[in-house]
Amino acid sequence: MVDVIIVGGGPAGLSAAIYAKRAGFSVTVFDKGASECQLAKAADVENYLGFDLISGAELQEKFVEHVNKNDIKIVKKAVVSVEKSDVGFTVNTKKETFECKYLILATGRSHKHLGVEGEERLSGAGVSYCATCDGYFFKDKVVAVVGGGDSALSQALYLSAICKKVYIIHRRSVFKAANYLVERAKARENIEFIFDASVSEISGEESVSGITYTVGETKKTLACDGVFGAVGEAPNIKFAIDGLCVDSRGLVITDGLCKTNIDGLYAVGDIRQKEVYQVVTAVADGALALEGILRSANGN
Amino acid sequence: MVDVIIVGGGPAGLSAAIYAKRAGFSVTVFDKGASECQLAKAADVENYLGFDLISGAELQEKFVEHVNKNDIKIVKKAVVSVEKSDVGFTVNTKKETFECKYLILATGRSHKHLGVEGEERLSGAGVSYCATCDGYFFKDKVVAVVGGGDSALSQALYLSAICKKVYIIHRRSVFKAANYLVERAKARENIEFIFDASVSEISGEESVSGITYTVGETKKTLACDGVFGAVGEAPNIKFAIDGLCVDSRGLVITDGLCKTNIDGLYAVGDIRQKEVYQVVTAVADGALALEGILRSANGN
Repeated sequence: MVDVIIVGGGPAGLSAAIYAKRAGFSVTVFDKGASECQLAKAADVENYLGFDLISGAELQEKFVEHVNKNDIKIVKKAVVSVEKSDVGFTVNTKKETFECKYLILATGRSHKHLGVEGEERLSGAGVSYCATCDGYFFKDKVVAVVGGGDSALSQALYLSAICKKVYIIHRRSVFKAANYLVERAKARENIEFIFDASVSEISGEESVSGITYTVGETKKTLACDGVFGAVGEAPNIKFAIDGLCVDSRGLVITDGLCKTNIDGLYAVGDIRQKEVYQVVTAVADGALALEGILRSANGN
Repeated sequence: MVDVIIVGGGPAGLSAAIYAKRAGFSVTVFDKGASECQLAKAADVENYLGFDLISGAELQEKFVEHVNKNDIKIVKKAVVSVEKSDVGFTVNTKKETFECKYLILATGRSHKHLGVEGEERLSGAGVSYCATCDGYFFKDKVVAVVGGGDSALSQALYLSAICKKVYIIHRRSVFKAANYLVERAKARENIEFIFDASVSEISGEESVSGITYTVGETKKTLACDGVFGAVGEAPNIKFAIDGLCVDSRGLVITDGLCKTNIDGLYAVGDIRQKEVYQVVTAVADGALALEGILRSANGN
């Protein structure tokens, strides 16, 4: 029996672990592999204050070191199921069972892939899924955003303030995005729309040099330096928790201190529904969740 | 005329500056002196993920370096007044006037001092104002919390899980704090209350060794390793902004993306009313405010 179990060893989970340990709780982190988290896959990170330029893998490594210095146990196993128990929660790996009073979900989310040739190979070398994270690397360059929802349009608008030219490539003839975003994008001189286009390939040797799509019968290749995939995201959670409230995308609904609708259960980082998905907001969630747990422990 | 002016060069202001610059905005930061921010005065910081042990001054220096690497202008002058203008805001130093579209307040807050002998000299050497930040440095030690409000009781509860013994020294015979906090504190075996006590001195050579107070006619000295001041805090803002909503403590009221009730005006870090006041939540505010500004710029 430990006080706090954290499922997921990305920035949010590791920050929660440090805040929990320092608050006097016993803590165990379950992480099936550090290389699984979004951060570890990011090429360069320039916006986590204190590190002006660091690779995602290196930053994640620093985070793990920090946790190790605090003598916090990290179990390198996947959690396969979680149940509410009399004392809190039962957490099951394939072969073992663990008990805790408070459970923190920190399993993150994944951006849906476009599923086209070249995408995986050029990921982090021109292919990105987050304009706020990576847009500045394409200053004064040409980029294509693939998608037609709020996220695609918001990312295109963000990029249009930095890049020379932004193409929005959408598979339909109308956008699903909110109208004000579409109107705003239309008003930007450096945004160009490509409708009814089915993307088939992202090309480039060392980094992205173009994107190939088909409109009707015609196949075209557009020269560009970056491709932003914006066709949706999904939470990384492979087990159901009875009665847990999630939104239509599967993201966990919490209050401002990361508490879910289930007593003792918290969700931190990208797996929870929130406004801004950044490394620093994930790390901040660790501090918020522990404040939530402390208040709960103090009877509020 | 710049896009964004940030008043205050602590963690929140500097993070906002980086997010603003990377979003394609022109940015100027006003900071009357880095050594003024709370972080720079903190002895050791162990809970900002990525740095397992660093002094507050060094961490603040790393933050400033990060901003300098991004070619962001920091003006080393105090802002004396701010007014709403047709295009946004007018920001005045003693001798000059600057214009901006968006204004971000990041001036922080100060903890009220006890105003007793030894307090300033031993600040960071046993005297602290934040249990979440510094409590772990007093693991298995004896500490005294001075105050009687929610903050004093919450800090005492936090500390009681880490420290051997926690004294709460309060100048009155009843607490102003919420009842559930008081009941919870009463139930903790290692918390002891000292009422009607007026603190006069914090003693110690290199670090805190005791606290002296008077009850009635009797002067007593209690041996302890740390003193946590919890007698209130006040925002660091020396100028009024017409119509700005603040709470009873003077903290600025914002929405979840740090937007105040005035269009184009944002507040980040310790100056805004929020749940958790930590370095990482201040840094996260920089990312939140820029998302707010981007949405506003996009017409939402």
